[in-house]
Amino acid sequence: MKYARVDVDGRAHWARATAPDTLELLSASPLESPAPSVTGELPVTGARWLPPVIPPVFYAVGFNYPRHIAEHGAATPARPEIGYRANNALTGHGSPIVKPADVTGRFEAEPELVAVIGRRMRHASYDEARAGVFGWTIGNDVSARTWQHEDRTFWRAKNSDTFKPMGPWIETAVDALAQTTTLSVNGEIRARFPTGDMVFDPYDYIVAMSRRLTLHPGDVLWMGAESTCRLAPGDTVAVEISGIGVLSNPVQEEAPQEGQQP
Amino acid sequence: MKYARVDVDGRAHWARATAPDTLELLSASPLESPAPSVTGELPVTGARWLPPVIPPVFYAVGFNYPRHIAEHGAATPARPEIGYRANNALTGHGSPIVKPADVTGRFEAEPELVAVIGRRMRHASYDEARAGVFGWTIGNDVSARTWQHEDRTFWRAKNSDTFKPMGPWIETAVDALAQTTTLSVNGEIRARFPTGDMVFDPYDYIVAMSRRLTLHPGDVLWMGAESTCRLAPGDTVAVEISGIGVLSNPVQEEAPQEGQQP
Repeated sequence: MKYARVDVDGRAHWARATAPDTLELLSASPLESPAPSVTGELPVTGARWLPPVIPPVFYAVGFNYPRHIAEHGAATPARPEIGYRANNALTGHGSPIVKPADVTGRFEAEPELVAVIGRRMRHASYDEARAGVFGWTIGNDVSARTWQHEDRTFWRAKNSDTFKPMGPWIETAVDALAQTTTLSVNGEIRARFPTGDMVFDPYDYIVAMSRRLTLHPGDVLWMGAESTCRLAPGDTVAVEISGIGVLSNPVQEEAPQEGQQP
Repeated sequence: MKYARVDVDGRAHWARATAPDTLELLSASPLESPAPSVTGELPVTGARWLPPVIPPVFYAVGFNYPRHIAEHGAATPARPEIGYRANNALTGHGSPIVKPADVTGRFEAEPELVAVIGRRMRHASYDEARAGVFGWTIGNDVSARTWQHEDRTFWRAKNSDTFKPMGPWIETAVDALAQTTTLSVNGEIRARFPTGDMVFDPYDYIVAMSRRLTLHPGDVLWMGAESTCRLAPGDTVAVEISGIGVLSNPVQEEAPQEGQQP
């Protein structure tokens, strides 16, 4: 099943895609209610997609694909060590990625598989971790490299508004580690890699994390990228993961602010 | 006014302290509703305090007090650069800080002033930042130093469950930068410093952050500490900020987990 969140008349609604062209609106979050009722229908065309979940905690893996690590001359992580992103940066499928006017240097896409947590987990076993993932979505970990290298934290390099597109929906029925991730810009393929070619898989992370912390329904775990590519205003960037869907976003230049230096 | 969240029969309720011994339960969050109605009363004695807000984004300043920076031989930050903590780690006034059984080395308290954001802000001026703070609470940025130095991120050093006590309430009527922070363990004072002796104040941070990101009602901004002190199981640690209140938590040793190596 594909679960999404859409904006209807300025309000967020949970929905599910039961046919290719129709979304059924739901009475409640499928993460909180096992059998939400259907309250209406919406055509897929023209839907305003929201991030499919607003996580209590937004977890993100750094280096996790061997080819990516080798290209950067980085050390292969010896243990699953998690990082964070920030909810303010989330945006939905189809919404613009806004490139700040004063970003210089490489402005890049990172196509990522995202696990959505479905159960409260502490001290989870590997099998409990597998059972505790509700479903899978797609993330684009947009990054301004000059800021990433200049700053002590990732606050503006990776967490400026609109830098974290996620969606279009959560797919609950897919073998997520046996899929192919494809990154395209303006319809041209820039990268393609197997989702499962990871140093540590999502369940390894959940086992390690849950020794120290409680995972909650709706938490998300972004799994890192093997390849990246540059973005420029006017581009449309698409991240496709087979069996899940396509997350596509136009790139826009930020409008100048009143009174702000150029 | 003092606004709190308390657990009543397993459910979170907003409340306000209008008399020293009584809490009024509220129909809605004062962050969302300008005039919530009173739905009941509760004696302050025996109240089960929850973190006074669960933030959409949990922001935290690192080095921000000149004496703390000097003691660490660190460079004074040239600009307000924000970091993050994670909601799983939050706990309320009176609840235990659980020291993991395998933490070695210094396990420490960091007493912090916390700004609670009240308005949506983007491109805020200094005056807009001042008007955009709803109120103030107290945080204890509990840290396991060995993990802090070993790890690439702060995930377990600062974000293990129970490592982020916050509370007891949000005080909306206080000149928060003209107060005194006092850190005590088992009733013995370990540190005392003026809240306002910061490199960059909360409004400087909000101005800088909101150039890149949208702040939302309920976001919290922890402002850093001047001094720290060690904690051990059996201790009770108290952070007092004059004009706001006292955040007090017992420290416990984690119970061993089945099948986990000692």
